This record gives sequence, C-alpha cells and structure tokens, in this order.
Amino acid sequence: MNVNGTPYRTIWLADDGWSVEIIDQTRLPHHFATTRLTTVVEAAHAIKAMLVRGAPLIGATAAYGLALALRDDPGDASLVAAHDQLLTTRPTAVNLRWALQRVRQAVAGQPLDRRMAVAYREAAAIADEDVAICRSIGDHGFGVIQAIHAGLVPGRPVNILTHCNAGWLATVDWGTALAPIYVAHGHGLPVHVWVDETRPRNQGASLTAWELNSHGVPHTVVVDNAGGHLMQHGLVDVCIVGTDRTTATGDVCNKIGTYLKALAARDNGVPFYVALPSPTIDWTLRDGVAEIPIEQRDPCEVTHIAGRDETGRVCTIQLVPHGSPAANFGFDVTPARLVTGLITERGVCAATPDGLAGLFPDQRSVAA
Amino acid sequence: MNVNGTPYRTIWLADDGWSVEIIDQTRLPHHFATTRLTTVVEAAHAIKAMLVRGAPLIGATAAYGLALALRDDPGDASLVAAHDQLLTTRPTAVNLRWALQRVRQAVAGQPLDRRMAVAYREAAAIADEDVAICRSIGDHGFGVIQAIHAGLVPGRPVNILTHCNAGWLATVDWGTALAPIYVAHGHGLPVHVWVDETRPRNQGASLTAWELNSHGVPHTVVVDNAGGHLMQHGLVDVCIVGTDRTTATGDVCNKIGTYLKALAARDNGVPFYVALPSPTIDWTLRDGVAEIPIEQRDPCEVTHIAGRDETGRVCTIQLVPHGSPAANFGFDVTPARLVTGLITERGVCAATPDGLAGLFPDQRSVAA
Repeated sequence: MNVNGTPYRTIWLADDGWSVEIIDQTRLPHHFATTRLTTVVEAAHAIKAMLVRGAPLIGATAAYGLALALRDDPGDASLVAAHDQLLTTRPTAVNLRWALQRVRQAVAGQPLDRRMAVAYREAAAIADEDVAICRSIGDHGFGVIQAIHAGLVPGRPVNILTHCNAGWLATVDWGTALAPIYVAHGHGLPVHVWVDETRPRNQGASLTAWELNSHGVPHTVVVDNAGGHLMQHGLVDVCIVGTDRTTATGDVCNKIGTYLKALAARDNGVPFYVALPSPTIDWTLRDGVAEIPIEQRDPCEVTHIAGRDETGRVCTIQLVPHGSPAANFGFDVTPARLVTGLITERGVCAATPDGLAGLFPDQRSVAA
Repeated sequence: MNVNGTPYRTIWLADDGWSVEIIDQTRLPHHFATTRLTTVVEAAHAIKAMLVRGAPLIGATAAYGLALALRDDPGDASLVAAHDQLLTTRPTAVNLRWALQRVRQAVAGQPLDRRMAVAYREAAAIADEDVAICRSIGDHGFGVIQAIHAGLVPGRPVNILTHCNAGWLATVDWGTALAPIYVAHGHGLPVHVWVDETRPRNQGASLTAWELNSHGVPHTVVVDNAGGHLMQHGLVDVCIVGTDRTTATGDVCNKIGTYLKALAARDNGVPFYVALPSPTIDWTLRDGVAEIPIEQRDPCEVTHIAGRDETGRVCTIQLVPHGSPAANFGFDVTPARLVTGLITERGVCAATPDGLAGLFPDQRSVAA
C-alpha cells in the first residue's frame, strides 16, 4: 500500500539483488524507516525483536532468512542451523514453521550451487502468494461488508471494530483483517474503523492507526476497554480481526484481548469475523484453549511504554510503580462458538470443522 | 491505611482546623504528595482534575467544598453557587449529588452564623460514615473470599481480579472492592490480586498496584486484555470490582472495561462481585444501559500517557500517530444478569430488585 504516495510492500529485495529490505515497524508510528537484512542472524533478530510481525510477514522474513543463510553457506549443517535458529524466534507463529519447511523442502534435493537461487525463488513466491491471498481475503470480506452496508440506513458508514494490527504491515501487502476494509474503501463504500489500541504493545494505536491514516480511511482509536460499551450502544456493525493460529475446528488464537471482544459481540448480536490466510490454519489442532501454548513475553512491555515526548524524541516511560510485578500473556484463544465466520482466500465459511473442510477439502484427511 | 508505616485517610482537616488536606492522586504512583484545599474553587478543581477520584471520596470532598464556600460567605447565593459549581465537576458520580444535598439540607434551616460549623460537622460525618461503611463492606466481602478459599486446594491463595481502583484511595479509607482483600490479608488468609491496568488513566497499574504494594498484598499487574485468558485457564477464582453508580435493579456503571470482564467471568463460571456503599445506588434507575449517560472525557487521555522517564521525571508521551482521532468513553454498564452478587455495608445480596430491596427495605418505595 502507499506511504506518502509511494507504493510499498513490507519486505522486498534491495537493489543489490540479494539483501532484503524491511520496514522497521518498531519505529512506527512516529518514524518511517526501512532497514536491510544481510544475514540469517539479522533476519532472526528482525522477527524476534518484532521489526517485522504478523504471521504472514514473519513467514516471508523467515524464508528470506534461509536464503541469506544459504548464500553464506549452502551446506546441510548451515541449512539445519538456520532453520532451527529462525524457528525458535516466535513459538506461536505457525506460518513461521510452514514457510521454513517449504523453503527447506525446495532446496533439499538441490545441488549446493543451486540452493541459494532456489531459496530466493521460493521466498519470493511465498511473498507474492501472500499478496494474492490477502487481496483475495479482501475481496471475500468486502462481500461481508457490502451485505452489512445494505442493511443500514443509506449513507451511514459501516462501523467496523478491529483489534491489534492485521493490516498490510502484518503481511506482505493488503493485510488480512484490514484487506476487506481497504477493498471497501477503494470501492467507495463508506467505512469507519474503531481501532483497539491493543496493549501492551499498542499495535492498534500505532500501526493500524498509522496505516489507515496513510490511506485516508476514517477511523477512531479507542482503549481496549471500550469495545463492550460501543457494541452495547449499536456503534459497531461488525468486528473483523486477524489470527496468528486457527485450529481445524475454527478456534482462533490471536492477540490477547480478542476473546473479550468476541464475548461482547456475541452478547450484543454483532457479527464477529476472523480473516485469515489458510497457512495460519493448524490442521493438527482441535481444541485451541487446551492445545495452543500461550507465549509469555517480557513484563517490561506491561510496566513500560514507548511514545513520542514533547521534543519529538521517542522514549520509554515507566507506568507501574516500583515493586509491583507484572505478567504479559501475548495471545488468547477465541472459541469457535463465538466466531460468526472465517474469511479466507477461498471464501467465507463457518468456524466449524465442516466449514473449514468444505473450503479446504484437500486438508480434510489431516484434520480428521 | 498505611503509607510508609504512617496511617492516612484520603481526606482530613489540616492542623489549622479549617483547611482540607488531600492526597494528590494525580502524582501517584511515582510521587506521594498531599495538597491543601482552602476554597470551593480548589475543591471543585480537585474533583474535576481527579486529584481526588472514586465515588465516596468525591462525595466527601464536595461536602468539604461546601463547608469551605460557607466559610467565605454563608449566604444563600453562595450556597447555591457552590452547590452548582461542585455538582458539574463529574456528572456520573451519584455520591456527589447525594453528599451535596445532604450538606445543603443540613445547613438550610440554620442561621448564617451557624452554617459553616454545621457544614464542617456534616462533611466530617460523611467521611466517618464512609470509613465505617467500607470496613463493613470489607467484613461482608471477607465472607465471600473465605467461602471461595474453603473450596480450594489447602494453602493455595485466592486469586482475585480487580479493575480500576476501588481501593482506599477511592474512598476515605479501606476502599470498596479492595476492602475485602485488605480484611482477608489482615486475617492471614492468602490472597493474590490480578490488577487490570485500566486504560486510559491506568488507575489500576498506578493506584491499585501502589496501594497493594504499600501493604504487602501479593499482586500482579496485567493489561486490560488479559482477564479473559486468565479466566479461561483457571487463574482467577473471583472478580471483585467497584461501581460509580448502581441501579435499583442491580446494573452496575463502573470504569470502562468492567463489562468485558463480567462477560469473561460468566463465560468461565467465575463469580463476579461488585462492592458498593449504598449511597452509590441510584434508586430511581431501572435500566443502566439505557438510562445512565456515559461521560466522554478528553481524547488526550487515550492518545497520550504519563509515566516516569529514566531520569525519574514524570512526563507525558504521545502514543497515537499525528492525524488519528481518538474517543474516550469513561464508563460502561454491566447488566445485573452478569453480576453474581453485590457486596454492601449491610451484607451480600443478589443483583436484582428483590435482592437490593431485601437489604434496603427503606428504599423499596422509591424503587417501585
């Protein structure tokens, strides 16, 4: 999408033809800066330190990370070491595992002098396919928004609540939860987005607000506490969120707090949709609450927060008084029973084993 | 309660016998400072700018504000002007209206030269009665915690989740939601408190954490998004929150986000209690969602946040990028159907018209 009028993806090959450029998302929303990855160590750092985040972008970055490793040393030991190093950066992200396996399998039978080229080609394919997938999610989700818009008083915008950042910054382009919004906006359908700030890392207040503002999509930032009140008072027509990991039964593991919004949607009859590229479906899982391990992150993300001070400098301040401990659970699981539908690149389906298997029959045997 | 070993209330008469001292709660948790109120203008400012907050403490401060006004000028015009000035500081706080009416009625029939003394006496009575009410809430709520503790594996602490600050800082002493916790802790019953940070003003992360830490009550600060996950995984035995305004039917208007936690409690079978002094019951209301106006506060509370920088200075930083608007709803309403019980100074009752009328039969005719 556009940044100050220039079209960008979130990851691309540099002019030198081999190093990998990304947007340093830790500097957003106050500074727009790109950075260059030249080694697998830098790629792993970019994932772990969340210069890149979002399941699809993590997958693409990991794929390019393997290509960078094979450029340095195409041997089997290098491949295995790079794979393992990248895999441990974010244990919850199923795309990470999927992308690494895909590149590894592509290079496995290749002679050493071909491996680097094959890995780069595979990484580029992963990136391009993600763009196509996200655009398709956008088109299918646009149908959901159109149907809701048709039921409203003419001229009134569709009020959409989203949590965290499942926008183009979380993917290679378009985004997942925000793709339908960008498509609707592009078609001239009036939308207004309630943006959950999404503590502790505030990806909503920073990244989603920045994205939407860059594109001129009307939006309002609210604290994570506000969604229930908004839904009680008819101020939300639909929720659309992303997911890091979806079970074969339709349970959704997404940023902490998603579950609370799904409960409020159910209590107020607001449709709750989850947008996802199919690589984030983990066909081996059937019970998200019981089976998905929830990453615990540094408590400093709760006790401290970064922002822009009055001089324009980005600094970190302490919120919690000295002596009070904090806990920082990264994700929660929204049970499928609270999900109105899943918006995938193949269409919209019920959040049920049958719904998913209907769209992805090739996976049925795995899920059974 | 104690601050560094010294017992405090949140409001008291200064040594001069007439000016009113308060803890400046906007400076907590990083600085403990008291300030002196000498005029009704200062009292109104203290309420509006949230140097004092919490329904009972707002009421006591408003009562002393009237006394300060009558000290300057005991005439009827002064009384009316001071009353009106104080009443507009926080439209949602029913205690404010109640305390002002009580002082106004007490002085109404008095000769001018008696009015100041009567107002001070009435304000002191309001403060003392609040302490007695909160202690009684603590004793009744302790019964709830004891019963839950009896059902747990021996030795395991009772995990209690609370939202915002309904501690002694929100009252004259003891608090409402935290009073049962202080009483339990005082009796040696092991408790651990999950403290919601409570965006946007973070009264949980700052005030509740500071209070509990000062008293050595085990606690952990979490973001507002975390409660659903905690309850899904059995990490919360009971929720206890406060309320700014309660309907005769048991609907609860409390800090924004309370409703989301009540939904999570219901979805996971966790008891959800609301602690309240009876002056916060508005016997004229029957439908909280429809009837209670929700205060919208300055969006800057969402877009900016204050904390302590690395030099120890308290500063304010910007979280939301330039150009993105924000909305700031102060409260939400938790419907009575989600409330397990109301903990009042007269005992614990169901959040129903009959439950409340049973404890407060003198109010039955008003509520009917």
